[in-house]
Amino acid sequence: MEYHIQFSADKNALVLLDQRKLPCVEEYYTCRNVEEIIYSLKEMVVRGAPAIGVTAAWGCYLAACQLMDKHGQAAAPDAWAKDLEKLLLDLADARPTAVNLAWAVNLMRDLYKKANPQTLKGLVDFWKAEAEKIHADDIAINKRMGAYGAEVIDRGDTILTHCNAGALATAGYGTALGVIRAAHEQGKNIKVIADETRPFLQGARLTAYELHVDGIPVTVACDNACALLMQKGLVQKVVTGADRIAANGDSANKIGTYGVALIAREFNIPFYIAAPLSTIDVETKTGGDIPIEERTPLEVTHVGATQITPDGVPVYNFAFDVTPAELIAGIITEKGILRPPYNESIAKAFMK
Amino acid sequence: MEYHIQFSADKNALVLLDQRKLPCVEEYYTCRNVEEIIYSLKEMVVRGAPAIGVTAAWGCYLAACQLMDKHGQAAAPDAWAKDLEKLLLDLADARPTAVNLAWAVNLMRDLYKKANPQTLKGLVDFWKAEAEKIHADDIAINKRMGAYGAEVIDRGDTILTHCNAGALATAGYGTALGVIRAAHEQGKNIKVIADETRPFLQGARLTAYELHVDGIPVTVACDNACALLMQKGLVQKVVTGADRIAANGDSANKIGTYGVALIAREFNIPFYIAAPLSTIDVETKTGGDIPIEERTPLEVTHVGATQITPDGVPVYNFAFDVTPAELIAGIITEKGILRPPYNESIAKAFMK
Repeated sequence: MEYHIQFSADKNALVLLDQRKLPCVEEYYTCRNVEEIIYSLKEMVVRGAPAIGVTAAWGCYLAACQLMDKHGQAAAPDAWAKDLEKLLLDLADARPTAVNLAWAVNLMRDLYKKANPQTLKGLVDFWKAEAEKIHADDIAINKRMGAYGAEVIDRGDTILTHCNAGALATAGYGTALGVIRAAHEQGKNIKVIADETRPFLQGARLTAYELHVDGIPVTVACDNACALLMQKGLVQKVVTGADRIAANGDSANKIGTYGVALIAREFNIPFYIAAPLSTIDVETKTGGDIPIEERTPLEVTHVGATQITPDGVPVYNFAFDVTPAELIAGIITEKGILRPPYNESIAKAFMK
Repeated sequence: MEYHIQFSADKNALVLLDQRKLPCVEEYYTCRNVEEIIYSLKEMVVRGAPAIGVTAAWGCYLAACQLMDKHGQAAAPDAWAKDLEKLLLDLADARPTAVNLAWAVNLMRDLYKKANPQTLKGLVDFWKAEAEKIHADDIAINKRMGAYGAEVIDRGDTILTHCNAGALATAGYGTALGVIRAAHEQGKNIKVIADETRPFLQGARLTAYELHVDGIPVTVACDNACALLMQKGLVQKVVTGADRIAANGDSANKIGTYGVALIAREFNIPFYIAAPLSTIDVETKTGGDIPIEERTPLEVTHVGATQITPDGVPVYNFAFDVTPAELIAGIITEKGILRPPYNESIAKAFMK
C-alpha cells in the first residue's frame, strides 16, 4: 500500500487518504492548518492511534506556520506563545481515548520548550524536522513490532483481527496488521478474518481494503460471527491494536475487542495486542481509568444514506471498550513481546 | 402493533408486512400462491421461526387452491396428490434451519392424511380451517409463554435481546418480546436493549420498530457493544428466541446469540430462550446436528445502496449459531419454564 499520510512540501500541507470514503472511493483530504487537522481527527478522515499521533505532530507544525503568517518570521515568543498553547490544547482535545494524540502534542511541546526557539521561523523549522522524525519513526517501529510479533504466528494460521490496526491506522505498515504483514512476508501462508467492526466498519472497509491491495488473503465477517467461527476451528490467533494501554496491561481498543477476547478464551485461542510503547500510558493505573469516547448516534442509525433504526429510538455508541490484562497472551511492542504479569513487564520496558 | 400476517378472504391471499422495508417504509407483500409464499420466506419478506411456520401453513392452503384451479373442485386425489407433495417439499425447503417450517408442513400433511378428503374442495376447506387454527394458536401460545416468562423479569430490569423474536417473528405478540410485553403490561417498568443484529439488522430495524410502536423503551446497540454494556451494569437479563432447539437444550438462533450467551456468563447475567414447543426438535439430539444456513454475501457486503467491503473480498454469512445448553438458564415455553437438565425437562414437556 502507498503511504496514506504524506507531507506535501509544495502545498505546505498534510495530505490524507480520506478513510471515510474507502473502500470504494480513493480521495484525498488536504490539511493546510490546524483547524483542518482537528476536523480530520474528529471526523475520522484519519483514525487509528499511531496515525492520530503522527497527524497531531504535523498539526503542531501547521499551527506554528499559521502563527508565523500572522506575526511574521522574526516574532518573539511573547507575541505568540499564548496563542500557540491554545491551538495545542484544542488539538489535543480532538479525540479523548487515544493516548497517542496527547502523547504527540506533549512530545512536540516538550521538545520545543527544551529547544526554546526565539523566533517563529526557528520554531517552524524545528517542528518540521521533529514531525518528519515522528512520522519516519512510526514506520520503523511498526516494522520492528512486526518482526517480533511474527514469531507467535504459526505456518497456516488464520488470524482474526478487529477494527483496523493497519497501515491506515499508522504512518504505514501497521501494528496488528504489521505483525500479519511480517508473517506473510516470511511466507507463513497465513489468512486473515477481518471483523467488520460496527458502527464505523473499519474492518470491512479499511482492513479488508489494505490487505486485499497487498495480496494477503482476507475474509470479512460480521462482528457477531466470532463465536461460531472460533467454534468451527477457523481461527488460530487473534491480534488487534490498542488505543491506550494502562500500566497493568488493561487495553482500550475499538468497541467489541473485549467480547472477542472473552470468546477467544472459551476456545483457548491466544489473544494478542500489537501496539508501540507510545500507546502505553503508565500514568493510567488500570483500564477503569481510561475515558471511553461516545460518538454521534448517526454512526449507528445510518449506513451511507440508509437509515437502519426507527426515528425516535435512542442508540448507544461507545467507541471503545477495555480488555482486561488477564485475557491478553502478550503485548507486542517495538521492544519485544511483553508477557504477564504486565505491571512488571511494562515497567521494565520503560526502564530500558 | 397491528398484525403483520393477515389472511385476506377477499383476495384469497396471505398479506405480509414486508419486513425488508422496515423501519422506514410500511409496505405489504401479497402472496396469492405457494411460489409467492416460498419467495417471501427465502427473501425474508417474513422471517422468525414461528412466523415462518404460520406462513408455511397458509402456503399449504394456497398450494391446494392452485391445484383446485387446475383440476377443478371435484378432482380425486389420484389427479393431484403427487403434484401436491412436490409443492409441499418445495415449500419445506425454502429455509433450512428453522424447524417450524418443516413442522408446519408436516403437521398440515399429517392432518390431511388423517382426514383423507376425497376432493380438492374438501382439502381446501379443511386446510383453510387448519391454517386459521395454527395462526390463532400461535398468538395464544405466545401470550401463555409471555405470562410464564414475565415471572423471571424483575421490576426495573433492562433486558438485552438479539435479533427479532417479536410480534414480527410470530403471528403476533412474540416469543422473547412476548415475555418483554407481558412484563411491561404488568407494570414492571422494564427497558430493552436491542442488538442491531448484523447483517440483516433485525434488531435495529424490527425489534426497535415494534417496541417503539408499542411504547416500550428500547435502545439500539451494535452487536459488539455487548461486553461493555454488561460490564457497565446496564443489562440484568438476556432473552432471545430460537430457531431450533435440540433434545438436549442446545439452541440454534440468529448468528451472534452464542457470543452474547458467553459474555453474559462472564457477568453472571441469566440468559433465557423463549420459544414454543414447536421449536424443539426432539429428533435432533444435540446442536451439532442442526444445519446452519449460509446466506448470500450481499447481505454482508452492502447495506442499502452502500457497498461496505472492497470488490473481490470474500465474506462469511452464516445465519445462525448454536448456544450450548449449559449457557441457558431456562427455556420459556407455553407449558412453563424448562430448566436444566434439559434432556429431562424437554422429554417431560413432550409427555404432558
